[in-house]
Amino acid sequence: MSVYTSVSNDDMQAWLQRYALGELVELKGIAAGITNTNYFVTTTHGRYVLTLFEVLQLAELPYFLKLKSHLSRHGVACPAPIADHNDQFASLLSGKPACLVSCLHGSDVSAPNAAQCRAVGEMLAQMHLAGATFPLRMDNPRGPAWWAHTASTLYDAMPAADAAMLRDEIAFQASHRFDFLPHGVIHADLFKDNVLMDGDRIAGFIDFYYACNDILLYDIAIAVNDWARLPDGSIDDTLASALLAGYQTVRPLSTSEADAWPVMLRAGALRFWVSRLLDFYQPASGELTFTKDPGVFQQLLAAHRQRNSFWL
Amino acid sequence: MSVYTSVSNDDMQAWLQRYALGELVELKGIAAGITNTNYFVTTTHGRYVLTLFEVLQLAELPYFLKLKSHLSRHGVACPAPIADHNDQFASLLSGKPACLVSCLHGSDVSAPNAAQCRAVGEMLAQMHLAGATFPLRMDNPRGPAWWAHTASTLYDAMPAADAAMLRDEIAFQASHRFDFLPHGVIHADLFKDNVLMDGDRIAGFIDFYYACNDILLYDIAIAVNDWARLPDGSIDDTLASALLAGYQTVRPLSTSEADAWPVMLRAGALRFWVSRLLDFYQPASGELTFTKDPGVFQQLLAAHRQRNSFWL
Repeated sequence: MSVYTSVSNDDMQAWLQRYALGELVELKGIAAGITNTNYFVTTTHGRYVLTLFEVLQLAELPYFLKLKSHLSRHGVACPAPIADHNDQFASLLSGKPACLVSCLHGSDVSAPNAAQCRAVGEMLAQMHLAGATFPLRMDNPRGPAWWAHTASTLYDAMPAADAAMLRDEIAFQASHRFDFLPHGVIHADLFKDNVLMDGDRIAGFIDFYYACNDILLYDIAIAVNDWARLPDGSIDDTLASALLAGYQTVRPLSTSEADAWPVMLRAGALRFWVSRLLDFYQPASGELTFTKDPGVFQQLLAAHRQRNSFWL
Repeated sequence: MSVYTSVSNDDMQAWLQRYALGELVELKGIAAGITNTNYFVTTTHGRYVLTLFEVLQLAELPYFLKLKSHLSRHGVACPAPIADHNDQFASLLSGKPACLVSCLHGSDVSAPNAAQCRAVGEMLAQMHLAGATFPLRMDNPRGPAWWAHTASTLYDAMPAADAAMLRDEIAFQASHRFDFLPHGVIHADLFKDNVLMDGDRIAGFIDFYYACNDILLYDIAIAVNDWARLPDGSIDDTLASALLAGYQTVRPLSTSEADAWPVMLRAGALRFWVSRLLDFYQPASGELTFTKDPGVFQQLLAAHRQRNSFWL
């Protein structure tokens, strides 16, 4: 359940007057998402999604909301934030930063097929191209400096073999940086639960709150690591190839990117292994924390470290 | 038929590569509209409307396209222009300025009911509020200076009684200017054929190519003059009241605006009487001209000049 902050119909109706969206018809909590509070908001004009941000502050939102607006304006499938009469995408509601976005018609898939993986790759490439004209910038807060620092706080608590593997991978990544590869706006968290599908078509990428400026190939690695990962932690070659093929119909990868691919897959696995280790060993206080198994990404990283063929 | 400029599938597919919209599936001419060429464009991502501008030049488009983008971003029902990878809304296709916009689901109505008139009034007010933060400006090219000059070229060709009425109305309007009334972005041509309805809901305002900065009340008068006008040229009080009531749920009119209303209705009728007289007496050469009956607006103006009650 993800309604942490309650909004009354009266408060919603009053807040809606900031917008050109008509009058409130229905307000209904959405039982999905683990970080923010979400509602479906039906007005006399249409249906929207209300998000109340439980962690992010109002001043932190412009990069993410302006990015979604920019991508939507370029036809990339994602929710379009609605601006209010002050030309702002967010303001306080029930004491929390809040925004309204257009409502997409689709749902996430837990076991994608190859056509869906191909569509995800294609749309991801479109997102990378459309991001090229986005004027704001944000460094990746979960990059190498973050994982090295975070790992240093975890080694003592971890089993020795796991700690050794983590140390070794962080050192390996530090010796393989690819700052010369194409950079741009990346989603950085394009897991299966952050894509709404309508059959084999992308209804929309959602949850852009890890988006930042980083290496484009790293974004593809993060997506492949989730979309093509089987329940046992191994990678399905057909799904991985389909995602990469879809991507390359729009933006063919260079030889340098192909060379960097195996290391980038490891980097993508490392980043989520570290964040899950952090949640596991140092859970944040409060009711908002859902601990996911770090072992999945350790297995995946181990598989990537042993593997020699990478579908490119 | 309104496909003046033909676009081949190959040309369309090549031009589509400027956008993040996937590959061409179908291109189909639209037999509506009298000024521009329109196509439905279906891609692997969705359905869009292509407009090729037959008269407007590329440099004239930003005001109109950025306005539609601004209004759409604020939730006002209208087509959203799609930006290309150069972050532009328009570029040349088959030698004409061309743009793609989102496809709306609705159709125009020829005999609206009161609920539809109310919805049009409400959305028009939302458009006026949302327009307040639009940064670009354009003077009304069809304002008092235009109608006075245009009329001066028509008097000699017109029957004496009609010319006398036209002279008198232009003098009357010149003695009643309302520059102190609320200004803003107006549609300036919100006739029934420029609104797509989905039942009693507004699917979208379209055809913003007369939009400009002018008196908001004038925009309402233009809308009432068409939406509430019966086939015999008289105004249906119920429809006019419904449109005004819908408008005022969002932006109540001031006493000054209510006082100016009868004169503004006459101004709205005058502007279209003059443009139709111009088309009638001085038809532009070429196949793009459809001459509409100027008499409708003369009748309407005559009715407004005699009437004393104005639903406000």
